[in-house]
Amino acid sequence: MGSPVHRVSLGDTWSRQVHPDIDSERGTPPFSVERLTNILDGGIQNTVLRRKVESILQGDPVFNLKDHYFMTQDEQYEAAIQKKFHLEILARHLGWSEGSPERSYAERALSGYVNLGLHGIAMNALRSLGSDEQIAKWGQLGKNFQIIATYAQTELGHGTNLRGLETEATYDAATQEFVIHSPTMTATKWWPGDLGRSVTHAIVLAQLICSGVQHGMHAFIVPIRSLEDHTPLPGITVGDIGPKMGLEHIDNGFLRLNHVRVPRENMLSRFAEVLPDGSYRRLGTTQSNYLAMLVTRVWLLLTGILPYLKKSCVIAVRYSVIRHQSHLRPSDPEAKILDYQTQQQKLLPQLAMSYAFHFLATKLLEFFHSSYNAILNRDFSLLPELHALSAGMKAMISDFCTQGAEICRRACGGHGYSKLSGLPTLVTQVTASCTYEGENTVLYLQMARFLMKSYLQVQVSPGSTPQKPLPWSVMYLATPGPSRCTAQTAAHFLCPDLYTTAWAHVSARLIKDAVHHTQTLMRSGVDQHDAWNQTAVIHLQAAKAHCYYITVRSFKEAVEKLDNEPAIQQVLQRLCDLYALHGILTNSGDFLHDGFLSGAQVDMARTAFLDLLPLIRKDAILLTDAFDFTDHCLNSALGCYDGHVYERLFEWAKKSPANTKENPAYEKYIRPLLQSWRPKL
Amino acid sequence: MGSPVHRVSLGDTWSRQVHPDIDSERGTPPFSVERLTNILDGGIQNTVLRRKVESILQGDPVFNLKDHYFMTQDEQYEAAIQKKFHLEILARHLGWSEGSPERSYAERALSGYVNLGLHGIAMNALRSLGSDEQIAKWGQLGKNFQIIATYAQTELGHGTNLRGLETEATYDAATQEFVIHSPTMTATKWWPGDLGRSVTHAIVLAQLICSGVQHGMHAFIVPIRSLEDHTPLPGITVGDIGPKMGLEHIDNGFLRLNHVRVPRENMLSRFAEVLPDGSYRRLGTTQSNYLAMLVTRVWLLLTGILPYLKKSCVIAVRYSVIRHQSHLRPSDPEAKILDYQTQQQKLLPQLAMSYAFHFLATKLLEFFHSSYNAILNRDFSLLPELHALSAGMKAMISDFCTQGAEICRRACGGHGYSKLSGLPTLVTQVTASCTYEGENTVLYLQMARFLMKSYLQVQVSPGSTPQKPLPWSVMYLATPGPSRCTAQTAAHFLCPDLYTTAWAHVSARLIKDAVHHTQTLMRSGVDQHDAWNQTAVIHLQAAKAHCYYITVRSFKEAVEKLDNEPAIQQVLQRLCDLYALHGILTNSGDFLHDGFLSGAQVDMARTAFLDLLPLIRKDAILLTDAFDFTDHCLNSALGCYDGHVYERLFEWAKKSPANTKENPAYEKYIRPLLQSWRPKL
Ligand SMILES: Cc1cc2nc3c(=O)[nH]c(=O)nc-3n(C[C@H](O)[C@H](O)[C@H](O)COP(=O)(O)OP(=O)(O)OC[C@H]3O[C@@H](n4cnc5c(N)ncnc54)[C@H](O)[C@@H]3O)c2cc1C
Ligand SMILES: Cc1cc2nc3c(=O)[nH]c(=O)nc-3n(C[C@H](O)[C@H](O)[C@H](O)COP(=O)(O)OP(=O)(O)OC[C@H]3O[C@@H](n4cnc5c(N)ncnc54)[C@H](O)[C@@H]3O)c2cc1C
Repeated sequence: MGSPVHRVSLGDTWSRQVHPDIDSERGTPPFSVERLTNILDGGIQNTVLRRKVESILQGDPVFNLKDHYFMTQDEQYEAAIQKKFHLEILARHLGWSEGSPERSYAERALSGYVNLGLHGIAMNALRSLGSDEQIAKWGQLGKNFQIIATYAQTELGHGTNLRGLETEATYDAATQEFVIHSPTMTATKWWPGDLGRSVTHAIVLAQLICSGVQHGMHAFIVPIRSLEDHTPLPGITVGDIGPKMGLEHIDNGFLRLNHVRVPRENMLSRFAEVLPDGSYRRLGTTQSNYLAMLVTRVWLLLTGILPYLKKSCVIAVRYSVIRHQSHLRPSDPEAKILDYQTQQQKLLPQLAMSYAFHFLATKLLEFFHSSYNAILNRDFSLLPELHALSAGMKAMISDFCTQGAEICRRACGGHGYSKLSGLPTLVTQVTASCTYEGENTVLYLQMARFLMKSYLQVQVSPGSTPQKPLPWSVMYLATPGPSRCTAQTAAHFLCPDLYTTAWAHVSARLIKDAVHHTQTLMRSGVDQHDAWNQTAVIHLQAAKAHCYYITVRSFKEAVEKLDNEPAIQQVLQRLCDLYALHGILTNSGDFLHDGFLSGAQVDMARTAFLDLLPLIRKDAILLTDAFDFTDHCLNSALGCYDGHVYERLFEWAKKSPANTKENPAYEKYIRPLLQSWRPKL
Repeated sequence: MGSPVHRVSLGDTWSRQVHPDIDSERGTPPFSVERLTNILDGGIQNTVLRRKVESILQGDPVFNLKDHYFMTQDEQYEAAIQKKFHLEILARHLGWSEGSPERSYAERALSGYVNLGLHGIAMNALRSLGSDEQIAKWGQLGKNFQIIATYAQTELGHGTNLRGLETEATYDAATQEFVIHSPTMTATKWWPGDLGRSVTHAIVLAQLICSGVQHGMHAFIVPIRSLEDHTPLPGITVGDIGPKMGLEHIDNGFLRLNHVRVPRENMLSRFAEVLPDGSYRRLGTTQSNYLAMLVTRVWLLLTGILPYLKKSCVIAVRYSVIRHQSHLRPSDPEAKILDYQTQQQKLLPQLAMSYAFHFLATKLLEFFHSSYNAILNRDFSLLPELHALSAGMKAMISDFCTQGAEICRRACGGHGYSKLSGLPTLVTQVTASCTYEGENTVLYLQMARFLMKSYLQVQVSPGSTPQKPLPWSVMYLATPGPSRCTAQTAAHFLCPDLYTTAWAHVSARLIKDAVHHTQTLMRSGVDQHDAWNQTAVIHLQAAKAHCYYITVRSFKEAVEKLDNEPAIQQVLQRLCDLYALHGILTNSGDFLHDGFLSGAQVDMARTAFLDLLPLIRKDAILLTDAFDFTDHCLNSALGCYDGHVYERLFEWAKKSPANTKENPAYEKYIRPLLQSWRPKL
């Protein structure tokens, strides 16, 4: 298939030969890595297309990432805009249409180092919230980059609480315009990507006021920079919010609006409109305007969050078969660190999780595609479940990907702290996803409210079929399983039905427990809001268990479907087992609490878990190879396909500006310090 | 006491008035914050001295940190060297001697933004490993900065496994010199701080070879840069290892030695010496040469690791009473986010942990001081325990401080991702401490080996007094407590004896479990080394539980001593309770496993925990104020004493270079992109 050749892409001297320590790991693969890659890609045709795109980009020096780690913030920004510009030109030239797979493969190949990403999100918002005419008009302008837009929702004072947004859009019937205004300092828009220095337009979320009546948050298209010379338009104050933990190439910005007027047609009006006389007409639910966020959230999982964990696994696992440190037995040569049980316990659960989340996010995306059109056509019946799932899964996936990336980074010891390993950047970028598109605790609590409602719905008609059918993801609440686990040996824990049932049991118990606590407080006279707040921690725990359960279930189902690929099915089954058992062991208290598992059974689960580690370890390199990231896009001295870790680390380090520039401090401070002991003349 | 005035130190317009939302939190303190500060400082005289030092530094613009977040790596390096230079001059002028409290208060005030820190570590190594003459000679040179040194142990290929270090020091009896040499690329010294661009000398750890015989790792003083013009000396290749996740002001470096000759006297020889004829004389144990690391580790805890968590708590807690978001009840105004139970659950355990670790590290330092002199005088009886404790506690404290700092950062929502909050820098710096001075897993496993030995020692003579007395930290292994917890209500869990006993029980059980697993494997014929590796994960868990137990115990004992300060004792008691219970709840499986706690008792512990949150929340601002960090050293737009969060964030952001420089990408890429849709002429 030529795939190794494809992967060895840096084209430096070392790429020619694969290090024997990693070569031997690929010796006699028990399954076809290439087939697994195809499965992850969703079909062989996608693998072929993706590689074609990657080869094209790799041939062009503009798309090279190699000096990235040495750049200042300004240089990073410029490089990322440059890449976007060239990509746009290239895409038009090659006929890669907007939203095509080629485009998303190109972004994958560039590891996110392209700016103007918010433009896509703004266009999604337009398509979710705009009328057909608006979509036609602005969509066309956006498609050609005649305008460049961002999505400006968050303010200095408000992010989570959208009802608290202070930006006002007051309708002026006399001129048929909206007056968009930031009445206070805290109303300043804060954080929108590409806003600081790049965009010409913003989709501004503001409180709509018609004839003195507030109608809540709505979206408005607001031009902010001149299309002639890029200077801020009258009434606009705009700039960059300054340095961040990561994502330094992106110019997140601030925006103040001083009575800026836009025509009536600039309010996105799929779900609500303002008539010329100022009367307000609602066409959707109050939740409709949050739809844009939901779309982004689901779409982010596979393309914007999970790749960070996958790449971290690739780098750390590859490094761990090259790194030798200490001895397993005194007489042996130094061991590969991946042969230490503790190293396996760090990395292999992350690898299993990468696969678990891959199948979960794929499933969620399918569910989204099957329900989104109905929603756009104003059938909102699936919205609550879709909302809860997208919120909960975004929270879980971003939490664990962040934790996992940091575990991988630390598992590389000192070299994991070098930016040249690629890992610090992965960590500092992925952690942002715990906050943007909804702060994770807040999202989990939204899931929790949905679970409480679902649980109560089951209670209304216990035993009998509930009036409204239960959404698929919570169906299990209606059919309680056994109250004790039947496992009698460690091997029993390698049964997907057994551990899926165990997770369902724990999740259902915690949901019930949370609801009961809230209800008990309310019955004792506590007001419902206080009761919620005083049990929020318990609800949070329940929501997390539910998310874990859904993941185990979807992984299990995905593996079951691979009947015609027995070798791949076997290795993925192990990962699924490991994922489920790792969760049981790190949350063993939840399983022991009501005696569902006994202490002896937890020990069996641990034995099963520990026994899986060396089995998966054997295939670990193959399982990370299957993600098929090119060396170019990994951009890691530790993670290259060929395993030449030390040579690259050394050569890359030498190029650091600190080694090519004069030392600014020597003459000024170091020399005087060294001579300061001499008695002054 | 004038302490608020002391704290409000930025001297900007906002500092004049305290924001009412934070002012009200300080209204009627139930205890004296000032007294608590004195206790943390170890006496009122220390508080006074510290503040004096802080005032002096604050008066001098060189020591200002305010533009730090906008600097390039090069600028950060220069600024940190500049600060070191000025501090040195100032200290001499004011008579602050080396190792004086004034010096360490000065470093605290500068939040670590001073370079040449490795010089101190190298001097410590000299004092631990050098003979009296060597200490006299090199100590004097070092004290005056006639030389600037680093501690160069780690190599490209080896960090953890010191026996694997490849750098060689071959004795040449003909010239009475050592030939120091890097035989391979992986032998290149890699990571030592200040090595890249600053130091003139390095204490190089190398394999000693005399007359063809290897004697293991020893320390050598090696001049590496000319004292005249700072150029590398013959045979030396030296440079910077490139960009890192954090600590960008420090020039961690690499060093290759090509047959560099140093005189025989340059081998540090407290514990071993080479006679002129090349014969080798050991004066200590094989472990002695690791002593320098032990010293650094203990000393780091209070000054180099814990402050990161404390500061993160200060910033996040202060921000959480200014930030209003959403409503606790629909009719109320927006709530302070600290009033949400989930926010309390994030932050208050971190606050409790800050105090727990403070008392733990203080105790460990006392133990160290009481045993170090004996060790220097070659009485090694306390070394194993001191080694295990310093390893385990360093691992635990750095792990939890890193996790805690990130929790605090995320608890600030979007603004926590801005560098201007101060939090990203705290996180990316503290995480390095999980790796340097010993990788944490490796350190925990060293603790585990000590625990296994101690456990076996108890088993040899169960019941009767063991032959060798047990070290204090593991004494509890000899006296098993009750096998069931007696708590019957939530209130019972607020009893220090009860939860300390619970922790002792769990720790002892896990240690026993781990040892038994290893022994069972060995009895079944597995070789001892394999048996260790196949149970390492279990040993790791036991070591962690032991560390938690020691922390709970030392916190309990510290609180008990505060009998004469009942108000402070009460508030610290709550923190101690919270710390212990938080640990029980996050590890509930370990307590439920053998039925020591029942499910119902875990629920009681949870009730006790949740009930503590609002009590501690009331005092949260006071408890963070008590750390007495100046605004200057916090360097955070979110964390200032006066609470003027938004004003500062806005003003600081405006100063970002992105807002004061031209946009480099506009003419080159953005404008062409905006016009690219136009049909080409
Ligand atoms: C890198 C990055 C990029 C971004 N890009 C954009 C963008 O392009 N466009 C845009 O509009 N915005 C953007 N944002 C903003 C982002 O969407 C918000 O920061 C995010 O929604 C979180 O809101 P917040 O900052 O108000 O957090 P807060 O709500 O202030 O959260 C702070 C703390 O309060 C807690 N809390 C808040 N409310 C509750 C509650 N009701 N119950 C319990 N706890 C609560 C949270 O759990 C958290 O611990 C971006 C942010 C980042 C970091
Ligand atoms: C910011 C920073 C500053 C530093 N400053 C200095 C300095 O001034 N001077 C200096 O000499 N050094 C310095 N170092 C180097 C540092 O001391 C080493 O990186 C550290 O000791 C870890 O060693 P390592 O890199 O070899 O990790 P490795 O040992 O390679 O660790 C990689 C992985 O292997 C695992 N592993 C290794 N051995 C075992 C085993 N026996 N059993 C189980 N698992 C194992 C670890 O748990 C880890 O997960 C610095 C490092 C950093 C990051």
